[in-house]
Amino acid sequence: MTDFGTASAAEIASAVSAGRVGAHAVTSTVLERIARLDGRVNSFTDVVSERALARADALDAARARGEALGPLAGVPFAVKNLFDVAGLPTRAGSKINRERAPAERDATLIARLEAADAILVGALNMGEYAYDFTGENLHDGPTRNPHDLGHMSGGSSGGSGGAIAAGLVPLVLGSDTNGSIRVPSALCGCFGLKPTYGRLSRGGTFPFVGSLDHLGPMARSVEDLALAFDAMQGPDPADPVVADRGIEPTAPTVDSGIGGLRVAVAGGYFARSGDPEAFEAVRTLASALGCERTVDIPEAARARASAYLITAAEGATLHLDRLRERGGDFDPAVRDRLIAGAVMPAPFVERAQRFRRWYRAAVLDLFREVDVILAPATPCRAPRLGQKTFVLDGVELPVRANLGIFTQPISFIGLPVVAVPVWPDDGLPLGVQIIAAPWREEVALRVARHLEREGLVRAPVAKLD
Amino acid sequence: MTDFGTASAAEIASAVSAGRVGAHAVTSTVLERIARLDGRVNSFTDVVSERALARADALDAARARGEALGPLAGVPFAVKNLFDVAGLPTRAGSKINRERAPAERDATLIARLEAADAILVGALNMGEYAYDFTGENLHDGPTRNPHDLGHMSGGSSGGSGGAIAAGLVPLVLGSDTNGSIRVPSALCGCFGLKPTYGRLSRGGTFPFVGSLDHLGPMARSVEDLALAFDAMQGPDPADPVVADRGIEPTAPTVDSGIGGLRVAVAGGYFARSGDPEAFEAVRTLASALGCERTVDIPEAARARASAYLITAAEGATLHLDRLRERGGDFDPAVRDRLIAGAVMPAPFVERAQRFRRWYRAAVLDLFREVDVILAPATPCRAPRLGQKTFVLDGVELPVRANLGIFTQPISFIGLPVVAVPVWPDDGLPLGVQIIAAPWREEVALRVARHLEREGLVRAPVAKLD
Repeated sequence: MTDFGTASAAEIASAVSAGRVGAHAVTSTVLERIARLDGRVNSFTDVVSERALARADALDAARARGEALGPLAGVPFAVKNLFDVAGLPTRAGSKINRERAPAERDATLIARLEAADAILVGALNMGEYAYDFTGENLHDGPTRNPHDLGHMSGGSSGGSGGAIAAGLVPLVLGSDTNGSIRVPSALCGCFGLKPTYGRLSRGGTFPFVGSLDHLGPMARSVEDLALAFDAMQGPDPADPVVADRGIEPTAPTVDSGIGGLRVAVAGGYFARSGDPEAFEAVRTLASALGCERTVDIPEAARARASAYLITAAEGATLHLDRLRERGGDFDPAVRDRLIAGAVMPAPFVERAQRFRRWYRAAVLDLFREVDVILAPATPCRAPRLGQKTFVLDGVELPVRANLGIFTQPISFIGLPVVAVPVWPDDGLPLGVQIIAAPWREEVALRVARHLEREGLVRAPVAKLD
Repeated sequence: MTDFGTASAAEIASAVSAGRVGAHAVTSTVLERIARLDGRVNSFTDVVSERALARADALDAARARGEALGPLAGVPFAVKNLFDVAGLPTRAGSKINRERAPAERDATLIARLEAADAILVGALNMGEYAYDFTGENLHDGPTRNPHDLGHMSGGSSGGSGGAIAAGLVPLVLGSDTNGSIRVPSALCGCFGLKPTYGRLSRGGTFPFVGSLDHLGPMARSVEDLALAFDAMQGPDPADPVVADRGIEPTAPTVDSGIGGLRVAVAGGYFARSGDPEAFEAVRTLASALGCERTVDIPEAARARASAYLITAAEGATLHLDRLRERGGDFDPAVRDRLIAGAVMPAPFVERAQRFRRWYRAAVLDLFREVDVILAPATPCRAPRLGQKTFVLDGVELPVRANLGIFTQPISFIGLPVVAVPVWPDDGLPLGVQIIAAPWREEVALRVARHLEREGLVRAPVAKLD
């Protein structure tokens, strides 16, 4: 019998729907696995066992009555702790938010997954207020990389990456403002989908930077990403994205082929300031896709700088009162960047926003010629826990600020990305970004699925037992 | 015979179309009148006599060939000097911009008026870079109020108000960021239309605050406002307003009746901090409209403060390089406010923008109950030229900053306004704002036209001869 404790979401849903295993049994196995293993990884901050088992029992009862179950039947999942979970304070990785009243209802995306019969089992560790690329939380301790416990999980969705790589749940949700899904996906060796800006509802989540925040799934297979993505789409009146997006979503399809897709590798900025193996990972996938083309994403360095300015200023705007009243309760590494944002001159941000419009138009132009662009997700493999600097192209740089150098210029304009894990001959994985045009998640998913079938990308469960 | 030198646009168009007078004759009369009288008012900075006469001759020739002329046939008009006029540098009231290359083509709205067979005769004085409510320009001298040459015209479209009140042209264009059409309309005793934000193209004009800038007409009759507005509407690819407005324009109709319209007077903030006669002017019009209702525009003081912050910061962003390189060439009163904007913390502006969304929704709610809201346009009649302070409700305040206290909270959310002139028994006029819901200019125009027919509002030509 399959060990449903580490099975994929698709396998579990299929087995539960068909009655080959009960939702209760799967949930119990998963809860037991979390209890047994997570002490070493530190990915969960809350486990909602009673709720999960009650939900599993209800599903089993429904099936016993002959009712058809949803596409995620019995699939255990967990969410970064910035998602509202009814009955829990939404801590968003902070100390301060723990004093908040418990959330009255679940975030929209949790409700969507449960409407597809998935089962929430808990909330996950994260960098404070999502202002983080390391996965190190001052209050809750770091989420350790399941593939090497002395290394970082990446952040800010570090608990999400850790739970997936440790095989604790097959599906998690994270958030990505500047790279917070793609960086831990890369460092923990799992798949992550950062959808188009605005595509998945942010209703019922604690924000960071309104004009940059995205939510998305992480999993150990492309199919699981797509299953979750399908279940979560659609308009939501509670979504704080107010701008009229003007484009209708198209349902993703996961197709094993990539016939006809035009693939290019991002050159210039995206071919510098990284370890050689990061670029080697990109080349390996490009080669497998028959790609010989390079495109230059113009002004990517300026895009990253602009994302920084907007992040610090919008983040500071959100936290202004807390900075004034509760400065001592922040992680200093987070607080000091927010203070810098609080005193940043408004014209810096205004100019960054104007540049953003130019840059978006320039990058969208590239998608007339190509369908997907490949770029590294991080400049290197997972640093050691506590590591403060690394050397990129001979220059010593702070880790915290620079793990996202390749992700920031992409999320800055809301492009959809599937992060895929590449495993060198030994040791920890690297991630590659498969970047598509807005609302073309399905294109990136198709390419990821093709690479997965070819065995070039994979997300194994870490050996913790 | 009518003196076409001070006739209305409608009268001129009718007479020129019917051949009762030639466009050349009207244009010559107008140019002669400008040459004779404007030395005292100082409303024109440029007169394009050759261009105007050539255009007039072309119209007369077309009519002689039997061609039908447009709805503004032979109507002389002038524009605030922030509109591009082919062959002139677009000075925008500044010293610095005079070094710019001459504009290659006319602004969109000039082209639209000329497409309706109006005739551009010149460009008009204005406050430097439109950051002004006084009409006093350090480089070009103040535009004097034609009704009392020792008093302010109001700004920043001071030349526009002066040219209309002096009877130099029947139609002008101005711009209004925080009140720059409505304030000079009030002080000079003429009619002004500040349309809904985004409704008239800003293509080919020198900006000030992208998220607040409006363009619109000023005239001596409501009919002339509507004629010009009709001629200028419609989409324009050159318009820098990029946001999808999502609402289609509806053509304005000028109807003499106001049957069924629900009218209210703005209370609270809009009933304080002004001379009694400013509120008396509002009451006079309200009474004539059978209005007994008062509505409270919520948080108007905060709206004004927010408009200030956004203006200073966005204005500074636009002028940042000029502030660094040419600080000494600004009017210090403009420069110092821009410098304050240049160092304003970004979260101030971000919070102002967030408040703006709340405030817009709250004010739009009021329009479920009413169709138009009346409020003073300025807190007092025209101050003396050079006057630095005035006393409002017993508090001495700077004139420059406070002439727009009643206009700023309205333009802040882009509502359309017709400013109408009310003449007390003696002396200078006062203005009243007729405020409508977005895209409902025609409602405000109908009310203004009704009041004009009743003789309660009027825009006489000043006695300068």
